[in-house]
Amino acid sequence: MLSSKKKYIVNGNSGIKAQIQFADQKQEFNKRPTKIGRRSLSRSISQSSTDSYSSAASYTDSSDDETSPRDKQQKNSKGNSDFCVKNIKQAEFGRREIEIAEQEMPALMALRKRAQGEKPLAGAKIVGCTHITAQTAVLMETLGALGAQCRWAACNIYSTLNEVAAALAESGFPVFAWKGESEDDFWWCIDRCVNVEGWQPNMILDDGGDLTHWIYKKYPNMFKKIKGIVEESVTGVHRLYQLSKAGKLCVPAMNVNDSVTKQKFDNLYCCRESILDGLKRTTDMMFGGKQVVVCGYGEVGKGCCAALKAMGSIVYVTEIDPICALQACMDGFRLVKLNEVIRQVDIVITCTGNKNVVTREHLDRMKNSCIVCNMGHSNTEIDVASLRTPELTWERVRSQVDHVIWPDGKRIILLAEGRLLNLSCSTVPTFVLSITATTQALALIELYNAPEGRYKQDVYLLPKKMDEYVASLHLPTFDAHLTELTDEQAKYLGLNKNGPFKPNYYRY
Amino acid sequence: MLSSKKKYIVNGNSGIKAQIQFADQKQEFNKRPTKIGRRSLSRSISQSSTDSYSSAASYTDSSDDETSPRDKQQKNSKGNSDFCVKNIKQAEFGRREIEIAEQEMPALMALRKRAQGEKPLAGAKIVGCTHITAQTAVLMETLGALGAQCRWAACNIYSTLNEVAAALAESGFPVFAWKGESEDDFWWCIDRCVNVEGWQPNMILDDGGDLTHWIYKKYPNMFKKIKGIVEESVTGVHRLYQLSKAGKLCVPAMNVNDSVTKQKFDNLYCCRESILDGLKRTTDMMFGGKQVVVCGYGEVGKGCCAALKAMGSIVYVTEIDPICALQACMDGFRLVKLNEVIRQVDIVITCTGNKNVVTREHLDRMKNSCIVCNMGHSNTEIDVASLRTPELTWERVRSQVDHVIWPDGKRIILLAEGRLLNLSCSTVPTFVLSITATTQALALIELYNAPEGRYKQDVYLLPKKMDEYVASLHLPTFDAHLTELTDEQAKYLGLNKNGPFKPNYYRY
Amino acid sequence: MLSSKKKYIVNGNSGIKAQIQFADQKQEFNKRPTKIGRRSLSRSISQSSTDSYSSAASYTDSSDDETSPRDKQQKNSKGNSDFCVKNIKQAEFGRREIEIAEQEMPALMALRKRAQGEKPLAGAKIVGCTHITAQTAVLMETLGALGAQCRWAACNIYSTLNEVAAALAESGFPVFAWKGESEDDFWWCIDRCVNVEGWQPNMILDDGGDLTHWIYKKYPNMFKKIKGIVEESVTGVHRLYQLSKAGKLCVPAMNVNDSVTKQKFDNLYCCRESILDGLKRTTDMMFGGKQVVVCGYGEVGKGCCAALKAMGSIVYVTEIDPICALQACMDGFRLVKLNEVIRQVDIVITCTGNKNVVTREHLDRMKNSCIVCNMGHSNTEIDVASLRTPELTWERVRSQVDHVIWPDGKRIILLAEGRLLNLSCSTVPTFVLSITATTQALALIELYNAPEGRYKQDVYLLPKKMDEYVASLHLPTFDAHLTELTDEQAKYLGLNKNGPFKPNYYRY
Amino acid sequence: MLSSKKKYIVNGNSGIKAQIQFADQKQEFNKRPTKIGRRSLSRSISQSSTDSYSSAASYTDSSDDETSPRDKQQKNSKGNSDFCVKNIKQAEFGRREIEIAEQEMPALMALRKRAQGEKPLAGAKIVGCTHITAQTAVLMETLGALGAQCRWAACNIYSTLNEVAAALAESGFPVFAWKGESEDDFWWCIDRCVNVEGWQPNMILDDGGDLTHWIYKKYPNMFKKIKGIVEESVTGVHRLYQLSKAGKLCVPAMNVNDSVTKQKFDNLYCCRESILDGLKRTTDMMFGGKQVVVCGYGEVGKGCCAALKAMGSIVYVTEIDPICALQACMDGFRLVKLNEVIRQVDIVITCTGNKNVVTREHLDRMKNSCIVCNMGHSNTEIDVASLRTPELTWERVRSQVDHVIWPDGKRIILLAEGRLLNLSCSTVPTFVLSITATTQALALIELYNAPEGRYKQDVYLLPKKMDEYVASLHLPTFDAHLTELTDEQAKYLGLNKNGPFKPNYYRY
Repeated sequence: MLSSKKKYIVNGNSGIKAQIQFADQKQEFNKRPTKIGRRSLSRSISQSSTDSYSSAASYTDSSDDETSPRDKQQKNSKGNSDFCVKNIKQAEFGRREIEIAEQEMPALMALRKRAQGEKPLAGAKIVGCTHITAQTAVLMETLGALGAQCRWAACNIYSTLNEVAAALAESGFPVFAWKGESEDDFWWCIDRCVNVEGWQPNMILDDGGDLTHWIYKKYPNMFKKIKGIVEESVTGVHRLYQLSKAGKLCVPAMNVNDSVTKQKFDNLYCCRESILDGLKRTTDMMFGGKQVVVCGYGEVGKGCCAALKAMGSIVYVTEIDPICALQACMDGFRLVKLNEVIRQVDIVITCTGNKNVVTREHLDRMKNSCIVCNMGHSNTEIDVASLRTPELTWERVRSQVDHVIWPDGKRIILLAEGRLLNLSCSTVPTFVLSITATTQALALIELYNAPEGRYKQDVYLLPKKMDEYVASLHLPTFDAHLTELTDEQAKYLGLNKNGPFKPNYYRY
Repeated sequence: MLSSKKKYIVNGNSGIKAQIQFADQKQEFNKRPTKIGRRSLSRSISQSSTDSYSSAASYTDSSDDETSPRDKQQKNSKGNSDFCVKNIKQAEFGRREIEIAEQEMPALMALRKRAQGEKPLAGAKIVGCTHITAQTAVLMETLGALGAQCRWAACNIYSTLNEVAAALAESGFPVFAWKGESEDDFWWCIDRCVNVEGWQPNMILDDGGDLTHWIYKKYPNMFKKIKGIVEESVTGVHRLYQLSKAGKLCVPAMNVNDSVTKQKFDNLYCCRESILDGLKRTTDMMFGGKQVVVCGYGEVGKGCCAALKAMGSIVYVTEIDPICALQACMDGFRLVKLNEVIRQVDIVITCTGNKNVVTREHLDRMKNSCIVCNMGHSNTEIDVASLRTPELTWERVRSQVDHVIWPDGKRIILLAEGRLLNLSCSTVPTFVLSITATTQALALIELYNAPEGRYKQDVYLLPKKMDEYVASLHLPTFDAHLTELTDEQAKYLGLNKNGPFKPNYYRY
Repeated sequence: MLSSKKKYIVNGNSGIKAQIQFADQKQEFNKRPTKIGRRSLSRSISQSSTDSYSSAASYTDSSDDETSPRDKQQKNSKGNSDFCVKNIKQAEFGRREIEIAEQEMPALMALRKRAQGEKPLAGAKIVGCTHITAQTAVLMETLGALGAQCRWAACNIYSTLNEVAAALAESGFPVFAWKGESEDDFWWCIDRCVNVEGWQPNMILDDGGDLTHWIYKKYPNMFKKIKGIVEESVTGVHRLYQLSKAGKLCVPAMNVNDSVTKQKFDNLYCCRESILDGLKRTTDMMFGGKQVVVCGYGEVGKGCCAALKAMGSIVYVTEIDPICALQACMDGFRLVKLNEVIRQVDIVITCTGNKNVVTREHLDRMKNSCIVCNMGHSNTEIDVASLRTPELTWERVRSQVDHVIWPDGKRIILLAEGRLLNLSCSTVPTFVLSITATTQALALIELYNAPEGRYKQDVYLLPKKMDEYVASLHLPTFDAHLTELTDEQAKYLGLNKNGPFKPNYYRY
Repeated sequence: MLSSKKKYIVNGNSGIKAQIQFADQKQEFNKRPTKIGRRSLSRSISQSSTDSYSSAASYTDSSDDETSPRDKQQKNSKGNSDFCVKNIKQAEFGRREIEIAEQEMPALMALRKRAQGEKPLAGAKIVGCTHITAQTAVLMETLGALGAQCRWAACNIYSTLNEVAAALAESGFPVFAWKGESEDDFWWCIDRCVNVEGWQPNMILDDGGDLTHWIYKKYPNMFKKIKGIVEESVTGVHRLYQLSKAGKLCVPAMNVNDSVTKQKFDNLYCCRESILDGLKRTTDMMFGGKQVVVCGYGEVGKGCCAALKAMGSIVYVTEIDPICALQACMDGFRLVKLNEVIRQVDIVITCTGNKNVVTREHLDRMKNSCIVCNMGHSNTEIDVASLRTPELTWERVRSQVDHVIWPDGKRIILLAEGRLLNLSCSTVPTFVLSITATTQALALIELYNAPEGRYKQDVYLLPKKMDEYVASLHLPTFDAHLTELTDEQAKYLGLNKNGPFKPNYYRY
């Protein structure tokens, strides 16, 4: 689920990039089956699967045991061995993490309760490929409670929490994932989820499209029994649109990435908090009085700016879009070109979805001790490659913190090597993940139970009513009391009392 | 232009109301030609034209002269008498107001300059029906500078600034409007704009649809020469959609009400300031520590809540839509039902677009000195009618401020008799009006110059690029410097370097 | 009470000015009895008494009757004629204003109730000289309810609300005040309060020191029976310190100007709201995106900056004191010299207590339409005098708004001719005045009831406990519930459970 | 320096506690020399020395080597062995930390430069006892650059950063400190600093008073040559006042704890950031929409409330002092008693300086998953002891995070076992420490260079001018430009152009 951050390409500064990237990815996608240059190939086809990923909650030291999980013989306490995790003995630690996560995922817990009788996923055989975290575990166990059988692999070779994977295996879920998989391990795990004797998936839950891709390439016949795909990442969604355009999408697919709740929460509200968290954990800096330039005033930029302003920073904004620019002005930020302030700022934050927003020339002109980081997309926003030159010295001062030192002694502080700060250096609040996970669960239920003909071989957005339902499931967390329309009011407004309450174009 | 506030029905709590209202209005619209019960009829068809309207900038006392302008013989200093205003001698006062307005309408001034050579409206004969204010005057004089001939009437019988009308008449604009027109005057003025010997309009700029209606009814043949209608109010826009659906729209029409800049600025940013202004001017209250409930968390509600929170009020929110409700939670407001807090709050503000949101029952339970006002729509949100009962005493304590007194001595403070606070008790910043006026000017230019076939007999939204252009014209006000994409970046993002920069569904 | 703003000299940027001013004033003070050059003299001795003063709540047009009140014969409905006001018939209007004020002065109302039995001011004969407003009326009627007899004059020749004065006269208070007194009227009114047959004051409540001065000069023997002076203005307080140092203070005096509640509320919280109100009422400007420089980051500056930042302005600060400067930095404001930003800002606000902070040179360099105003002290902060030169044109565009126009057409917008914006162009919230009035009432009670010897012939600050009591009386307004210490906690903290809770040096 | 947090007892909710505590401490202080029950004794006399302390920057695993440093023979690269640290080989890591710290301690670096010629501490022999962190190292090396010789021990048995201690030893400073000292080690280290052949200190820099105490007890004759004591903690300061009152203080002492800059920065600004940091690092929670009660609205409470409100939490405040309570109201917080909201809040934060603010009864009534933490003082604010009962289960889920589980399954999340959250679970920004360290350096210079007679055997506050100087040294960090008074203005205000700019009672 954590790869939801990848959607920033749409929201940062441009919703157009996807198509472009798409063209590139198409080639990679086709290239993938060839076996040459595996590592670099895999990076290009599945960038997210190798993103460095830091977890705040890894207690147990997994480095003590160098044996590959594939070479281990493990059983859970019930004697089941249909899984492959780092160390089944860590299950108890993982269970505790899952229990903590459950506390902030009330919507899934509510779903479990409401569906206790009906089992809307009875008969569903779901194969999943997502980050394996405590929150995913809550989702999986919810799907189980709703009647589904699940098999699961990781969508990223670094992101698996071994303890959580162990806990899932212990409670009977066939999980194939560990932290630090090799490229080969990655595909092996996916294959172990799909290629099972006597079991065939009828639903896919994917994050990035690798699982979908694998089935397309290896087991295309499986799609005959598959009722639908739920995909949550920008990358995966665009792969689906590509398949659809090419006429190759053979089942309905649900794009949960572009639901309102997910967009607003993952970007605006989550980044409002994670920018502070990421900067603090890496640099222990004080925000008060610092001069910051935020490149891009999309939802992510808006969140970053609001948080830093509230903490007493002086924030400048750069933008290419005059409407977002005018919003920045009205929100109280000086709109500048990066060059105008690059010599004076203490922090540079990119949130654009664009590339080379911070160039070597900018980096050369920054003042000593300037902090540079990226909240936008992958690591292209800051031209980090341009810093890998002989005259510059790199010093790793902390995890995720490098000092890049100029010949005259000036140093800039580069965070996460230009990769996403909030993925690398902070944690994503469970509550945000809860919204995404609930949306995924509802999308699975919808696709699985839809009468034939409601969905064709195309990519669908969530109905607004389902967006509103996800939101309503999260209101009790805040002890929030919704007002109901009277009959008279509903008639006056021309609304159904249960929603949807807004036209599709409503901007929120 | 001030009637732009009427759009709140769309943005407050529901974008659906329009259609419903439409059905009602259709009947009224058709009824209009009948001559029975003119006053009440006209109110139903043209509610905005009789909205009470307070101007902060009326220096000269127009009550000293009771002669109807229609009975006066007036000439401007050049001997021209093709106008009808209260008192042409007030022109100098009005000119000063116009000059002040020009300072905050840089975009129109920029348009004047840019178009000095080309005269994109050369040959245009525009008939307009809007509020006659200093800002409208800047628009009219801009249209003139762009080559157009204009004739103008007021869209509201109270809203005309007599001095400004005089200034326009003095500088040669045929203006027919004064403050305090009768119903009959209202239509007479409109007719004087249209029914001219040797002059026939080829463009319509309307606010509320009354002018368009009049031509439809009286001079339908005029539409043969009319190139298009630009309409800026919610009401007028929906009349146009009605005509369009009924197949009766015989020229292209541009809906400028739903442009992004107008929506975000008129609602969020403008209300953020006008809620404070309106409350201060009427009650001189202190915001700090006051408990406030804001009904509705659309753009208007968001603006009100942000402002009051910033001033130290404790704000509660009511909502019917779970998504907006969740936003309220994340923004730090307790989401409640009105009943839960009605006994304790110091201020009740409605921003819903709904009706009977504050009922007599609520009013009965409010504490002594509670302030009640409406930022949403017309005067239906608060059930003011229910207060007109014998046991309650009304005391007018200031202009726009009534004390309604219960038998036990409890009094509530009702502002503007439940009509829109920001229209009645504060002023709309020129800058906001500038955005609307610029959008109107651009829409006129676009429709007037569009090659045949680009627009059919339908209602159109402004192209996003034009929205972005309006925004860009306002950036210099803030000395804001937009970043330009490099060729490489534009290619990477798949964008034209000049925009549009966002997909249509982008939420800003 | 409104002259409480004069205290800004202490809080704006410097608490030292008083002594200096003192030296000057001393001479003026001594000069006063001479009769030469009355007008200019009176201005120098009693600057506050001629400050222009705008009331938001004057309904009745007092200009219709040019007869001097001194020449009128008026009686109230009970036949009493021991008063001199503009028009006794306006009493009903004034009574309504008083009733409104009572709603926001809960502490005085609570005092009335608590003291209903004991009458702590029984026997007190209080002569007062303050602004005559609805809030003063609530104070006076409270003093009356506590047992005191009062006679009252105005401390400012412009600030009297005639309707309120009439209402007080109608209910039996000997009030001698009207709006627009001459210099001679001013002293005549004061004399009428003091020089009464068969009645002699034993308490003085003064605002500015003019009443105290008059008694010193004319009726020094009265001090034999006077138990104390309560003084609330900076100016008056420093006159008292002067007398004290000179060994001429012959009764105890209470300085209520420097109480914590008054300082924090009058400055920080009140200015946070009044800066917005003052700017809106005069210019209808939009705050969002505007660049503002605030000169001085004392309490007043802090309030202005916080409000404008919250409304989306970009705020720069100038300071001379490095500690306040560092606070500005940590609060997120760029600390600059005025010269650095003078060309780019849209608004200049002075809050320094200093003089010539904005010089002609600054004014020359401001951009077109720049707004200039003063929240600090009198009209010396902006060098307005330097604008009274032949090459500049002054245009009065609205009440309190002048355009000053340079030969090249540039105009700056000067508010209130450089006098205090919040006194001239906004209203002071009743709630703030309530705190001051309550403090005055408590000080009167304390001095009147103090056992002999507790207070000597010196100037005293309010005991902290009384400050805390004033605060506690205002908490019910906010439905605020104070926590009480347990015995164990009080012992642990070494505090009395009823306070005082802080050492004297505590900064709040 | 980190123990500066201990000052919260003064600022949280009460400045009175000190005296009380003082009485207790006196006994302990006197008891100390006895040798019975050392561990518990030392805890009572030197609570801070055993506070648990978490460092974000410990890279090297010090647990690999169990040999006591006292038993090791170590030399630095120059052959010097006059030190005792964990592992001299870690020096390079420590040096890097020091270099990072230097970047945010510009004021000390500026002091180094300014004093390069004059060496104001030439001849000074300073013995110090503080936390040994990178920031302390910058201070020590600054003192060295100013001419002083230093010997140093740690004031807390846990807080030493071993790498930093190694770096100091490597560069020639006699440092005696390591993380995890025993009680005996603690005093041994102090003794090694003081008891040196051929070297005797003439200045003391103390944090907590243990060093001062040791010299008093063991080497009272040393005071003959000691010019002064600089003490920075609340505890230490009160020990000094105790000595002074008892007539036993035999040298001048400087109280740097109560300087304005230190107070405002350590409390308001630092806590504004550290409350967020501490909660995030321990719980990864989302702030938006959470209900929080903050007990105490002193500087610490103000900082916590402001930060949480800005992040979208709904904040309630409890207070015992009506003035602070009224401030909370005006700042927009509901003032409640803890009981009123205890069932509904998600987080409880204490900032009172009081004890048993959160009782077992409160804890029993909290809802499931409520987070409880302390930002105030030691661990008495929350009655943690009451949770150590058999029916409750404690589960350590992360470092510094315990779940306390009720029999019915309800769990509350207790952070840092009720000790200070910001000391235990977040880092103190270097910038704040810079202010404290600079103040200490200036105090040392002042005392060392003061002409005889300026300071007597008493406890002194820093002159305001020195406070202002510390502030001014930190302004360049923010590129902040102070305005200078003109001669005319200085005269008008009665100020020296170089300050001090405010009277002593000014509240900032």
